[in-house]
Amino acid sequence: MFITFLTDFGLQDDFVGTCHGVIKRIAPEAQIIDITHGIPAQAVLQGALVLANTVPYMPVGVHLAVVDPGVGGHRRPLALRDAEGRHYVGPDNGLLLPAAERSGIVDAHEIANPDYALESVSRTFHGRDLFSPAAAHLARGIAIGELGPPIDPEALVRLELPEPAFGDGVVRATTLYVDSFGNIALNLTRDDLDRVGVVPGSRVELDLSGERYFAVAARTFADARAGDIILFEDSYRNMSIAISNGNAAAMLHAAIGSPIGIRQV
Amino acid sequence: MFITFLTDFGLQDDFVGTCHGVIKRIAPEAQIIDITHGIPAQAVLQGALVLANTVPYMPVGVHLAVVDPGVGGHRRPLALRDAEGRHYVGPDNGLLLPAAERSGIVDAHEIANPDYALESVSRTFHGRDLFSPAAAHLARGIAIGELGPPIDPEALVRLELPEPAFGDGVVRATTLYVDSFGNIALNLTRDDLDRVGVVPGSRVELDLSGERYFAVAARTFADARAGDIILFEDSYRNMSIAISNGNAAAMLHAAIGSPIGIRQV
Amino acid sequence: MFITFLTDFGLQDDFVGTCHGVIKRIAPEAQIIDITHGIPAQAVLQGALVLANTVPYMPVGVHLAVVDPGVGGHRRPLALRDAEGRHYVGPDNGLLLPAAERSGIVDAHEIANPDYALESVSRTFHGRDLFSPAAAHLARGIAIGELGPPIDPEALVRLELPEPAFGDGVVRATTLYVDSFGNIALNLTRDDLDRVGVVPGSRVELDLSGERYFAVAARTFADARAGDIILFEDSYRNMSIAISNGNAAAMLHAAIGSPIGIRQV
Repeated sequence: MFITFLTDFGLQDDFVGTCHGVIKRIAPEAQIIDITHGIPAQAVLQGALVLANTVPYMPVGVHLAVVDPGVGGHRRPLALRDAEGRHYVGPDNGLLLPAAERSGIVDAHEIANPDYALESVSRTFHGRDLFSPAAAHLARGIAIGELGPPIDPEALVRLELPEPAFGDGVVRATTLYVDSFGNIALNLTRDDLDRVGVVPGSRVELDLSGERYFAVAARTFADARAGDIILFEDSYRNMSIAISNGNAAAMLHAAIGSPIGIRQV
Repeated sequence: MFITFLTDFGLQDDFVGTCHGVIKRIAPEAQIIDITHGIPAQAVLQGALVLANTVPYMPVGVHLAVVDPGVGGHRRPLALRDAEGRHYVGPDNGLLLPAAERSGIVDAHEIANPDYALESVSRTFHGRDLFSPAAAHLARGIAIGELGPPIDPEALVRLELPEPAFGDGVVRATTLYVDSFGNIALNLTRDDLDRVGVVPGSRVELDLSGERYFAVAARTFADARAGDIILFEDSYRNMSIAISNGNAAAMLHAAIGSPIGIRQV
Repeated sequence: MFITFLTDFGLQDDFVGTCHGVIKRIAPEAQIIDITHGIPAQAVLQGALVLANTVPYMPVGVHLAVVDPGVGGHRRPLALRDAEGRHYVGPDNGLLLPAAERSGIVDAHEIANPDYALESVSRTFHGRDLFSPAAAHLARGIAIGELGPPIDPEALVRLELPEPAFGDGVVRATTLYVDSFGNIALNLTRDDLDRVGVVPGSRVELDLSGERYFAVAARTFADARAGDIILFEDSYRNMSIAISNGNAAAMLHAAIGSPIGIRQV
């Protein structure tokens, strides 16, 4: 059985390793796949989008995810099951939903049964004390209903996913997240750009943080010269902004959640 | 069988991966759990404390740890067994003892038998050439006595663990280590603070590096305002200093091993 | 069956984790050993040398390596088999050859059969869509010839590995790569230094980027004083330059591929 694991814990401290230990004490045969632990601290939206992008590449199993600014407060600990038989474990703050809703949520439960948590649950490390044990017990085969009372899926906390707006030959989009190379993912697909006439080879104007930049819509980095700003479909089929041989986020001063206008020129 | 692995090697180079390869050539069925490889370079005390904190969350197995400023010199390579049946492998510089002494050391041996090392042992990478093979052979089931001659546990190198001192309503403590969020762990438990009347909700004065700071004893970050210095029980039951939404170590200029005075105000 | 994995992807994003997922969907029983994902971006030569250094410490299996500046262009995707029965998967840009040629390449094939790739192959992430699936299928036991047409090993892209030059009591070498501690590996063995009379204990002059430095040839760091520049045989039997308790690459302004002259004084 597989458990995938995504957090904002980083790899410098022992947090991730300790969760691995907790899982292996309960489910020694479970295989753990670390999707990433480099989500920026408390960046729930970025965590949710990376989880939704990567789960289709993962074996069916338990998808454990912890980006949890509300730990120790009132947010509920959550377990979900989707129509593909995948389970999800994490905080009820929207993190799990974009992934779980791809095929549709068929079961949602609050994690409340102390039989499936560590004996002592700290106020600050539910990843270790609550979520890892729940994921390990699910991987061992307990029914999701054992973890706690059902929740109406309509009552789950949802993130606001910004939608693009169209008008006057301009599409107004939002920057979703930035990877370690400085590439900026937008809330846009290739179809969205088609609607305003932007196709590979088009020259476009970007309007970002009050500045204007010229860019080129390209299929790959190989189609651009060093230093060019390019607009391309990334490997998860998001439109993204990059600079050939450069760091777009640094150069364009792009923060997550910024509005960006794109028009053909 | 499980091998846990803790070092100061970092993850940028191939050192950790190469040790995994060495282990898997000898013990292909062993499961390796990386506790952390982010111990600051040569920080034996921090490595020892993180190992002691995390081993209780790990399955029983072989606990391999390498923070080894004395590699290539006269320090002995060491294998231990504790009363719970856990094995420990690493340098005889104090690193293993706080973990192994939790349940009590029942067996200590110098690693000296070349049958259980790589054919050629470098002067600079005993993690690969000596410690990983010894851990892998223990995981395969050899008796610890096969590795080399016994050592009297009293003769093992010990770290000085600073003890808190009490007087005049002040507790004098020491900073033990700093995590990647800048939280500062102290050599104090909640009981120690009780002795000087500091309980959750108390306002306290910290005396650190000649500066004084006001802080609040809190149960969780949720009890503090952004920017407040808080004194809280961390998830390993150490008292720690943090700044809500900030980096306490950077702001308080705290180095590891610094004295700190705490009094209620 | 083992798959080792070396890239320049870093660990901050999900690239490595996603490749793990792809492999495990195809070959759930395969064990993955991450050699390192910290090769500097697009540093094919450093990746090739680290792979060649570390493969002898790895179990026989499939050695997947991706440092691939030409992704999306015309470089061929490649699978090799060597005389020890090890398989190699990665781009045909020289990355795999120093490792595979240690025992000799007995079979080379272009990866071209879409049955062994993901259904949709992106232009920018062949690690996920092409190389990970090919490695997983090899680990499951398909014959290398299933992946695509044979390639004459003589036609494979080769890196230029700089050779040292000798004359007038000087050896002219090249800096190959730098590890995270700032140690600088050279294209030199101990035998090469013997030829110009440099042995442990010798004092030497280094000529690097127009500057001259005095250094000492040492067996280990323990033979040097803090701050000394030392020339030593590293744990992979390369001669390397280090500074005792310091960062040699930063202090000597050494870039990869720089010429360096060494003479006894």
